[in-house]
Amino acid sequence: MDYKKWYLAHAAQIQKDFFTFLSFPSISADPHYTQDVRRTAVWLVDYLKQLGMDAELWETSVHPCVFASCMRAGKDRPTVLIYQHYDVQPVDPLELWHSDPFKPVVKDNQVYARGALDNKGQCFYSITAIGAYIQHAKKMGINIKLFIEGEEESGGVGTAAILDQKKEALKADHLLIVDLGLVEPGVPSISLGMRGIMTMEVECRAAAVDLHSGDHGGIVLNPIRALADVLAQFWDDKGRVAIPGFYDHVQELSPADKAKIHWGFDQKKYAAEFGVTAFAGEPGYSLMESNWARPTLEINGISGGYAGEGFKTVLPAKAVAKISCRLVPDQEPDHLFQCVSKFFKTHLAKGMGLKVQYHHGGPPFRSPPQARIVQVAAQAYEEIFGKPCRFTLCGGSIPIVPALAKVCGGDVALIGMGLATDNIHAPNEHFGLDRFELGFLTMTRLFHILAGEPA
Amino acid sequence: MDYKKWYLAHAAQIQKDFFTFLSFPSISADPHYTQDVRRTAVWLVDYLKQLGMDAELWETSVHPCVFASCMRAGKDRPTVLIYQHYDVQPVDPLELWHSDPFKPVVKDNQVYARGALDNKGQCFYSITAIGAYIQHAKKMGINIKLFIEGEEESGGVGTAAILDQKKEALKADHLLIVDLGLVEPGVPSISLGMRGIMTMEVECRAAAVDLHSGDHGGIVLNPIRALADVLAQFWDDKGRVAIPGFYDHVQELSPADKAKIHWGFDQKKYAAEFGVTAFAGEPGYSLMESNWARPTLEINGISGGYAGEGFKTVLPAKAVAKISCRLVPDQEPDHLFQCVSKFFKTHLAKGMGLKVQYHHGGPPFRSPPQARIVQVAAQAYEEIFGKPCRFTLCGGSIPIVPALAKVCGGDVALIGMGLATDNIHAPNEHFGLDRFELGFLTMTRLFHILAGEPA
Repeated sequence: MDYKKWYLAHAAQIQKDFFTFLSFPSISADPHYTQDVRRTAVWLVDYLKQLGMDAELWETSVHPCVFASCMRAGKDRPTVLIYQHYDVQPVDPLELWHSDPFKPVVKDNQVYARGALDNKGQCFYSITAIGAYIQHAKKMGINIKLFIEGEEESGGVGTAAILDQKKEALKADHLLIVDLGLVEPGVPSISLGMRGIMTMEVECRAAAVDLHSGDHGGIVLNPIRALADVLAQFWDDKGRVAIPGFYDHVQELSPADKAKIHWGFDQKKYAAEFGVTAFAGEPGYSLMESNWARPTLEINGISGGYAGEGFKTVLPAKAVAKISCRLVPDQEPDHLFQCVSKFFKTHLAKGMGLKVQYHHGGPPFRSPPQARIVQVAAQAYEEIFGKPCRFTLCGGSIPIVPALAKVCGGDVALIGMGLATDNIHAPNEHFGLDRFELGFLTMTRLFHILAGEPA
Repeated sequence: MDYKKWYLAHAAQIQKDFFTFLSFPSISADPHYTQDVRRTAVWLVDYLKQLGMDAELWETSVHPCVFASCMRAGKDRPTVLIYQHYDVQPVDPLELWHSDPFKPVVKDNQVYARGALDNKGQCFYSITAIGAYIQHAKKMGINIKLFIEGEEESGGVGTAAILDQKKEALKADHLLIVDLGLVEPGVPSISLGMRGIMTMEVECRAAAVDLHSGDHGGIVLNPIRALADVLAQFWDDKGRVAIPGFYDHVQELSPADKAKIHWGFDQKKYAAEFGVTAFAGEPGYSLMESNWARPTLEINGISGGYAGEGFKTVLPAKAVAKISCRLVPDQEPDHLFQCVSKFFKTHLAKGMGLKVQYHHGGPPFRSPPQARIVQVAAQAYEEIFGKPCRFTLCGGSIPIVPALAKVCGGDVALIGMGLATDNIHAPNEHFGLDRFELGFLTMTRLFHILAGEPA
């Protein structure tokens, strides 16, 4: 079967359906979009049924999951579970988008939209590949299950809670996480692990109401000052995190594992691509090691007082910071939350009110390079791209992966077609139509290799 | 003439007109309201003409001023210039208001609206007093000029620029700044000085676009971290400002001046009134000295990354802080701006982009207690309130006052009916109708004392 020919013949309809998928504002982190998230899931179920799969919604306490399967190969054949998510990040700052985030446009062969890559783009070439495989495999050599989460961008508390009760449905021989990327254009790569995450929020309060900075300055301790004072103490003079317990449980990569990873990093090129002028690796580690194999601490948001146009002479009642940690084996989200919370309790100025709130988290994950599904994915990549596959790690997190891998019971491969320049989680997110097609071709090839069938 | 009787007879109409004045959203700091600011000024000119004054708009490069006069007393009689402003502060955070900031409501004899006190309330009892005096003084014993600024809350750059060309019109024997308050309910007070101000903004930038904190954390220096690091160094371990040059030119109060001031401060009561739990006076000074007679440094606003609902794992491209200093004699705004800017240049992390922007400023001001207009105002207060008048200082600033005093050429009294609990510059600003009436009565009495006429 010539999948490339099939793809070209159907490209217009595929793009039309993809754009419909992208047009749903399925922002899982913002409760205003709860109904839009659901509508996206309902649309997906219907679409997957049309492709020939059994599909259904799985309700959770937050946003529904989509589950679909095609078990025609039979019990004695391998089953692969493919993980995706259909929810997307918020779009602020909206004014920096060149087009409506939910009205996809194509420019220079790139699709611009929120979710264009992360992860509706990866989701849709996978779905298209499944559809083509089902349609054309005379006798299917593998069974396929598809699990599409609706809250990957907002912690996945609801999804995590149903995994156990859906254990039977989610069982598979292999798990493919299709939410990652290529090290550079044209170079196939498989990630052997991703960092975990812990997200939280702190509020420092000095007064019941916002005050006039002239009438009260010199009397009331400014909560922005108190907050900044603690945040500045997060790191020591060398740039190492100074929060007691932060590096507890961190495992160094073994020399053998370290040697398998492709660490190549062109700092000059990177600086030019993202307009980056200030760098901050951990002392004693390269920038790539700091991003892939070391825990990091970030202030993801801060607010307090008046930060709009002009100037307002307010002494704010409170200041808020959103804080996250990225975790490596064997760190646990809850431990990091306790460490950061305790640091605030012991370092915040006397009298300042403190509220600490845990948002969400997930442990780190590593996948052994000798796993069968990793080998199969590498072969598919190499055949489609005509180049050897590189092994990497990933600085990002998909909180559900460790728990999903456990429930699934199979080996795991972390793959995808993203590029670091796709602006995921930022204005003007985009995804190349060339990579959409490569993703489709790689997935279909992977199915045939796993089934032991010719393509 | 019984002004109290007159006031009660006209109270309904006065309140109706006052509410019309309050309903204009004359937010001078936000360019979206430019036309509303102008409409307010036009309405005022018309209203003052109806009261029997000559009134006109004075155009500036920003927002217009209103100037009105009644010179019927003749050249040999004293002239008093009354300063007011008709613009108001922004209203954010709007969600904390219990009613629409531009739809005034009365609750427990308090008027709730943006500007209810600051300074439309003070402005309107003064206007009402002028109107009643003009209407009832058989032969006016004083000339009255009224100067109402439209950008007191946004720096007054335009107003400052026209003072020199309006020198002749603004000449007067006495200047009344009616924008201040009472030390506590029922206790008349006159401020013998106010602090100056310098406002500015800094932007720290690490990258051209917002980045994903997983994919980039450990590589890129977070600009919120870099900003917090500098802000935390603003103060030393004792709480004294550590910016070189900050305390240059600061004059200590002389023991004689210090003895004239009523320094009474009930910290427990204050804490209860504003829900304040964290205090921050300058080491070596009481809280009231820190607020009235010492310079302070505040972070009035901070923003960076995602601070909305939920969580967004962004590594922000930039972080912004709005910063102000309150100045005492003989500090100058420009010097403070240079000190803070230089501190950022020398302390910000290597590679981090820095933009520094001056917003507005004004020098501090002091008024001698032996001035004729101060004596007259004190007498009027004491007769209306039946209590001795206290002398205070003011931690706030009216940037235009020093320059206006110079152009006017007369002595100056800083008076008003505000209370620290009126929530000016904050949600649910309010002003008591009882104090509106007291303000009206004090102003009319002041006119008669200054004219040497019986009330």
